[in-house]
Amino acid sequence: METQKIVILGCGNVATYFAERFMQLKHAIVQVYHPDLKKATSFATAYHAEATANLSEINQTADLYFIAVKDIAIESIAENISNVNGIVVHTSGAVKLEALRKHQRAAVFYPLQTFTKGIKTAHQQFPLLIESKEKSDEKYLEQLALEMGLQVHFINSTQRTEIHLAAVFAANFANHCIKIGYDLMAAQRHAPEMLLPLIKESIHKLNYISPAQAQTGPAIRHDDVTIAKHLDMLNNDASLKLLYELLTKNIQSSNL
Amino acid sequence: METQKIVILGCGNVATYFAERFMQLKHAIVQVYHPDLKKATSFATAYHAEATANLSEINQTADLYFIAVKDIAIESIAENISNVNGIVVHTSGAVKLEALRKHQRAAVFYPLQTFTKGIKTAHQQFPLLIESKEKSDEKYLEQLALEMGLQVHFINSTQRTEIHLAAVFAANFANHCIKIGYDLMAAQRHAPEMLLPLIKESIHKLNYISPAQAQTGPAIRHDDVTIAKHLDMLNNDASLKLLYELLTKNIQSSNL
Repeated sequence: METQKIVILGCGNVATYFAERFMQLKHAIVQVYHPDLKKATSFATAYHAEATANLSEINQTADLYFIAVKDIAIESIAENISNVNGIVVHTSGAVKLEALRKHQRAAVFYPLQTFTKGIKTAHQQFPLLIESKEKSDEKYLEQLALEMGLQVHFINSTQRTEIHLAAVFAANFANHCIKIGYDLMAAQRHAPEMLLPLIKESIHKLNYISPAQAQTGPAIRHDDVTIAKHLDMLNNDASLKLLYELLTKNIQSSNL
Repeated sequence: METQKIVILGCGNVATYFAERFMQLKHAIVQVYHPDLKKATSFATAYHAEATANLSEINQTADLYFIAVKDIAIESIAENISNVNGIVVHTSGAVKLEALRKHQRAAVFYPLQTFTKGIKTAHQQFPLLIESKEKSDEKYLEQLALEMGLQVHFINSTQRTEIHLAAVFAANFANHCIKIGYDLMAAQRHAPEMLLPLIKESIHKLNYISPAQAQTGPAIRHDDVTIAKHLDMLNNDASLKLLYELLTKNIQSSNL
């Protein structure tokens, strides 16, 4: 693919990740938008791009407008981009394509992955979910994603919401259970990192077996003595105790 | 350490893992016990060991009696081992040392790790939690664990229960959240494995930041629109909906 002119809207984790990937593929970040000009400038400098805090100043000749901002800001940003001919995409799992209704060349470019500034992504081959108003733009975005070595899936807005909900359980909620484990360790002055080999091995198993097959522990064993002991230990935290009970019940009923 | 004579009681995942490690260190598995003689025999054969289904036939001259069985079976097995001089250990996170009260040389040898037969453990350097009635046996077990490259911690029964509870959240409950994610994918005919790069990357981040810092998603962003949409999608599964609500509330209140 020849060099594409790209405007990045947003300076967060997703914007940072893809700006880097676009650069590696020799595309040109021509402009960076953020309502805070300082942030826009600091981000833009790294790519020798222009910075702006004003949507009326958006470069009108770019090939791609890459909106990677908070869900609630997507629609209003899209509404305030005018007179552009390139494709306008957003990168959210939970926002419909419809949020970009002002633009004929509109699409969603949703990475099923988590990014954090400053942490090099170890799993670079993740699914990239594309939905496009125009068939020809779909091809273009597919090519862009394939160049990055991503796994392309064509997914409509309803399907994307389904996958996003699944991802919330599998990533956000799983991470929160790990956080609770860390908190319980710290509360008793044990080093939380002691749990890491166990956590990593649990995930490693998912390369070979399903999470249903991988389940271990008192709940799946119906080990009522241990469960009662654990609930007793959680007596001073009603919400944690309720969570333990609910998860245990759910494990037991869904693995009949 | 010179060759130790070891009796393995149990044929499950933990027994299998440690039998293998003991062998690699040139220790001798002299006998395998399981109430089902077929199972005992099949396990023992791999180690050129005797098999027995009868606790009255336990070899009385071994250095170590390694009880790796279900929690509820530990005490009765220990009670029925007689006239032995070696150390009797169990490997459970949730059972007190007291369960081995019959034996003067009694100890706990608890691996903070998950094992599954047939899956090669990727994270071999995990914490090994030791509690021993006799100080000299503590030294012996430490040496045994260090030989395997494990991280030795001396932990009493109360502390072990605390760590076990934390591990249930960080491993069992986190795995269950992943299972729910897989189920939600499958229910809508999406390939559950699409979630794997995301799941792996979430865990990879924990090498650098805490799970509290790593949290992303609608709950931590207080994205009420997406949360409401997700709850609506879970309307046909009351227990899953409750779990979503509870986890969301817990994320929001514990990351103030």
